[in-house]
Amino acid sequence: MAPIVTDFSAFPAVGGVRVAAAAAGIRRNAGADLALVELVPGSATAAVFTRNAFCAAPVTVAREHLAAAAPRAWLVNAGNANAGTGAAGLAAARESCAAAAAALGCRVEEVLPFSTGVIGEDLPVDRLAAAIPGLAASLSPGGWAAAAEAIRTTDTVAKGAWRSLELDGGTVTVAGIAKGSGMIRPDMATMLAFLATDAAVPAADLQAMLRRAVDASFNRITVDGDTSTNDACVLAATGAAGIHPRGGDLERLERAVAEVCRDLALRIVADGEGATRLVTVVVEGGRDEAECEAVAFTIAHSPLVKTAVFAGDPNWGRILAAVGRAGLGDLDVERVEIFLDDVCVARGGGRAPGYREADGAAVMARDAFTIRVVLGRGSAAATVWTCDLSYDYVRINAEYRT
Amino acid sequence: MAPIVTDFSAFPAVGGVRVAAAAAGIRRNAGADLALVELVPGSATAAVFTRNAFCAAPVTVAREHLAAAAPRAWLVNAGNANAGTGAAGLAAARESCAAAAAALGCRVEEVLPFSTGVIGEDLPVDRLAAAIPGLAASLSPGGWAAAAEAIRTTDTVAKGAWRSLELDGGTVTVAGIAKGSGMIRPDMATMLAFLATDAAVPAADLQAMLRRAVDASFNRITVDGDTSTNDACVLAATGAAGIHPRGGDLERLERAVAEVCRDLALRIVADGEGATRLVTVVVEGGRDEAECEAVAFTIAHSPLVKTAVFAGDPNWGRILAAVGRAGLGDLDVERVEIFLDDVCVARGGGRAPGYREADGAAVMARDAFTIRVVLGRGSAAATVWTCDLSYDYVRINAEYRT
Repeated sequence: MAPIVTDFSAFPAVGGVRVAAAAAGIRRNAGADLALVELVPGSATAAVFTRNAFCAAPVTVAREHLAAAAPRAWLVNAGNANAGTGAAGLAAARESCAAAAAALGCRVEEVLPFSTGVIGEDLPVDRLAAAIPGLAASLSPGGWAAAAEAIRTTDTVAKGAWRSLELDGGTVTVAGIAKGSGMIRPDMATMLAFLATDAAVPAADLQAMLRRAVDASFNRITVDGDTSTNDACVLAATGAAGIHPRGGDLERLERAVAEVCRDLALRIVADGEGATRLVTVVVEGGRDEAECEAVAFTIAHSPLVKTAVFAGDPNWGRILAAVGRAGLGDLDVERVEIFLDDVCVARGGGRAPGYREADGAAVMARDAFTIRVVLGRGSAAATVWTCDLSYDYVRINAEYRT
Repeated sequence: MAPIVTDFSAFPAVGGVRVAAAAAGIRRNAGADLALVELVPGSATAAVFTRNAFCAAPVTVAREHLAAAAPRAWLVNAGNANAGTGAAGLAAARESCAAAAAALGCRVEEVLPFSTGVIGEDLPVDRLAAAIPGLAASLSPGGWAAAAEAIRTTDTVAKGAWRSLELDGGTVTVAGIAKGSGMIRPDMATMLAFLATDAAVPAADLQAMLRRAVDASFNRITVDGDTSTNDACVLAATGAAGIHPRGGDLERLERAVAEVCRDLALRIVADGEGATRLVTVVVEGGRDEAECEAVAFTIAHSPLVKTAVFAGDPNWGRILAAVGRAGLGDLDVERVEIFLDDVCVARGGGRAPGYREADGAAVMARDAFTIRVVLGRGSAAATVWTCDLSYDYVRINAEYRT
């Protein structure tokens, strides 16, 4: 399938947020590689980070700064992950924050750093700092598109998503940009996502809202099962719209945040390295969501399933075997059903009666389709998204750096 | 690397065991696809099977028969896994055992069935049964090589291993054959291994011995992280040598069994689908073996590490990131060291002082090398073996069936 192209000409401004991008010469190829997001004073910021024990220097510094102050700015560079760089990397991350703080007239703790790119090389902090005054001078409400371009690494397209919604008191906007192509490449690194809304949301509510949205979106996609040292997703609520959603309105805002996260997540997986098909894996009828998720990820991570998807081969035995090894206690295989879109391929422990291979092949020939597994032992469900495993995945990951 | 070729001209006979192979026309291509192993009365058989909830019909029947009687014969076919075949598959497995029992003059429960091949197609039990009288008539102590050929599917070489050892009372032999190429392909299916010794070992001791040997060998290799519906490993002790090892001799016998299992396991991973390099992953300095194994498998399963190995690229950031996401609580990344053979590439959370990329590249250019991770928090260790992820892995698994 083709990657999902974002029409940035329609990307909305978010009250209280100004954005800019610049070329700082960090990335080997030319072009913008540095982005700055400025938040109006009083904004709340929620954040989730990688669970990788080897987290990058900017992740460590961002956590420290979040604990010390409400952020006024996010500084993002591509081309260098500042990971595996030890004490020098921490110092470089702090210096880059200090440069941004000086240009914006805020405290260093009010700047969060983010990096994506090659691991194990020193961040060229002098070049980064030199670009910051010009970057700060060019901040504007319409800078999101340029920032989405600047943070790309192996992404073939820039990625953005947004929602506007009418709440009691007026219209609010939720918008965000993201980058990520492998999920995740520890050397080119990283999924990063930056979201903002002009609604006013207390920090604790905002953090809970983001955590749930990320669990249902970015944590439900997989290209290759790897987890970067630099993953981060942040969400600011500036309050610039003067609206403080509560009750049902807060739930509607959370739904919009979740939708923007899911839109961005699907753009990442559709731009997965070497991806030719987008696969939605739905597991239903489980005892709880956790076991549904375990089955869904076992299918989505299986190289055998992913190569069959690449080939357009309705090889249901591979899906069945993945269900069987997902670790579910006392699974009654006689009750399991497997569908490719609306075609039932397996039932009662084997091939479904009346199933014709041509019907399965017709589904697998599509650019995007759903593998649906019914476990038949409860009412819980979970959905994850993945792509196929192609020659190009091997090429991209074998040839990078060489 | 080239697959490891077994010199079957030196393969020993095992007292009390006769083996034969024949072409039954089950596999699409010509050639032998059916093997029979006959055990002398009084033999003990130990067995371990797949943990996949969708286990194949022969696995179900073999478990039933093992519970009912001491086996006198193992019947193995390639070309059809008899998996995902429901009640008809169970009947077919029982019929094939009955045909072998009739030819050998034993009870049906004394025959264990094994199948490997395509999933979801009916086993042509008539063709199988028709071949059995001739098969039984050609049983001989020297039939192991022919059987190792007959059970191949995508294996590019037949696989065997053996040890002879001097115990109190005389010489005993441990010998075995195996098949497997993906680890594991649920459609072409399966890792199967058949071992025998002429020592006398009580069934319970034999089962414990086999379980430990399998945990340290076949359960420590991975090509693609998938687990077949048909996996099985059996070990017979015929007692034909008239030797009943005890104490230190029993330990020596167990060591020989473990070595034969490991030899066969390495032959499987070296013949992994599309494999060009054999990688030993050693994780040391852990608090317990389980956490060392978790780290080792996270590295060995990582598509990013495996594509870097294919490229011969000493991309230590990918190894470091895999260590970091293996789920170890309070891992102190400052204490972690990573070696490629004897070259230290990472230390103290980043690139090792003095490490030169040319040194890492020289190791990665080898056909076989070791990734060694030192966790620095205990004295436990674990080893697993894997291969790289190449274009040919994608080709073999995308093009099979099409």
